[in-house]
Amino acid sequence: MDKYYIGVDIGGTSIKMGLFSHIGELLEKWEIPTNKEDEGSHILTDIAASIEDKRVEKDGNIIGIGIGVPGPVTDDGTVLKCVNINWPVFNVKKKLSDITGIGNIGVGNDASIAALGEVWKGGGRGFDSIVLVTLGTGVGGGIIIGGKMLTGVRGGAGEIGHITVNPHETATCGCGRKGCLEQYSSATGIVRMAKEGMREDSCLSKLDEITAKDVLDGVKAGDRYCDEVFDKFASYLGGALATIAQVVDPEAFVIGGGVSKAGDMLLERIEKYYRESVMPALSDKEFALAQLGNDAGIYGAVRMVL
Amino acid sequence: MDKYYIGVDIGGTSIKMGLFSHIGELLEKWEIPTNKEDEGSHILTDIAASIEDKRVEKDGNIIGIGIGVPGPVTDDGTVLKCVNINWPVFNVKKKLSDITGIGNIGVGNDASIAALGEVWKGGGRGFDSIVLVTLGTGVGGGIIIGGKMLTGVRGGAGEIGHITVNPHETATCGCGRKGCLEQYSSATGIVRMAKEGMREDSCLSKLDEITAKDVLDGVKAGDRYCDEVFDKFASYLGGALATIAQVVDPEAFVIGGGVSKAGDMLLERIEKYYRESVMPALSDKEFALAQLGNDAGIYGAVRMVL
Repeated sequence: MDKYYIGVDIGGTSIKMGLFSHIGELLEKWEIPTNKEDEGSHILTDIAASIEDKRVEKDGNIIGIGIGVPGPVTDDGTVLKCVNINWPVFNVKKKLSDITGIGNIGVGNDASIAALGEVWKGGGRGFDSIVLVTLGTGVGGGIIIGGKMLTGVRGGAGEIGHITVNPHETATCGCGRKGCLEQYSSATGIVRMAKEGMREDSCLSKLDEITAKDVLDGVKAGDRYCDEVFDKFASYLGGALATIAQVVDPEAFVIGGGVSKAGDMLLERIEKYYRESVMPALSDKEFALAQLGNDAGIYGAVRMVL
Repeated sequence: MDKYYIGVDIGGTSIKMGLFSHIGELLEKWEIPTNKEDEGSHILTDIAASIEDKRVEKDGNIIGIGIGVPGPVTDDGTVLKCVNINWPVFNVKKKLSDITGIGNIGVGNDASIAALGEVWKGGGRGFDSIVLVTLGTGVGGGIIIGGKMLTGVRGGAGEIGHITVNPHETATCGCGRKGCLEQYSSATGIVRMAKEGMREDSCLSKLDEITAKDVLDGVKAGDRYCDEVFDKFASYLGGALATIAQVVDPEAFVIGGGVSKAGDMLLERIEKYYRESVMPALSDKEFALAQLGNDAGIYGAVRMVL
């Protein structure tokens, strides 16, 4: 009988799952809905049932399950706070092991396992230490040092979206503070900045609703106002990455999330501000685009148990 | 015959050395001058000769040497750049082993080993993950995660003195950038700020030469101008530590260096600004004073090989 691994990435609306071969090839992927009712107590049983269905279908053995959760996780697999899926504090590793009878289970924070996935099979391949920066609705961070996830004592390592980059900001961030990185360098931040200073000579002024993609398309089309917004986005982000380099000194920054679809143009602008801000001895870092997209989590999850 | 360990901390003017018992007690300490001539090539032979003298005196065996160097060090014991002592790139571990015939040799960056020392026997005891912040002429950082030194790929981890905290600064830092943390939150920074905005109603205005201690004494004596300078010092530092917490999430910050002699008053003010700046989930960190002073390095050096 063939042996398989399962990678799981739990999100607020759906749970991504992947079937991997014993040498780490992704064979198949699928999703199930996230049932957040009853303190999210159905989530692990739903996952276990889906794994069992797949095992029967393949007539094989599942020899390891890796699971990513949207919140801080301690080393023994206990989740501390997963507000998005209504979970209380409990040991995910133990509970999933009790349900499935499988002993080889790894549990990690979703941002950290995405970074692990990118190092293993994505934009971070060839590097041993990276910071994965995910530019989506917010700004997420996953840190890999010497091939291992850096999680911090409360799972707070890599919370780079809430680094204060502008002490003079008057608008309030979702975290309750003012001037956080993700108020500028996320998709939401780009749209906010674009709306705030809107100029009539910009292509954006003709749109009913503005998206981050509109702004990035405007940059490519040579729109000056879009470029100013983009420049602000990149200067805050490049400066923050310089700070991060002076704390953990990784080999590379890997940039992912929806905003990273802007590609090389994005890397170039971020790198420009990074170099202007970092101490000279650390200016020589690699910048790469993430490659696994939404699959980074299931890859990283499996990497934990392989 | 008794077995001993030697801890060595190489500085720009003197080399601190300590004799430790096999259970890690500091038995004796002494210093030798740092001979920087001939690309610093006499330094290791001077150290080896001093160790041999001590071994003969004690009629014992040296079973391990830990050595701290003022610059980045890779995992295999190669120094990359030690400008203070004129060293080229070479493998310190191998060379010292060749000279002394001792195989158990550890080499680390001086800021990192000081942090290791404080975790082992000083202000960081009881913690597994700390950031040691050394407030002296500059601002140094040593990071311990899970009991191990975090050094970074180029030895640049913990270079927190050069985090940009004020993008509007016009004065240039020693590193060539503007607005670095150590332009405000070091002894030098305190003096610089005090001189810049000097007011006649301050006790400082009567002094020919101002030191950081004068400013800190002024704070204790209720001098309002001194308090403003101190507040600026603490707000930049507290904000930077908040950023650092969001990158590595340690259990505690341990504050050392000459400025830390201001004691609890210092911790309280830094902590105030830390809490105002950090994301709520990470506000609950411990702040402690370093306890080993200049001996932190020799303790940490020995800890590497014990």
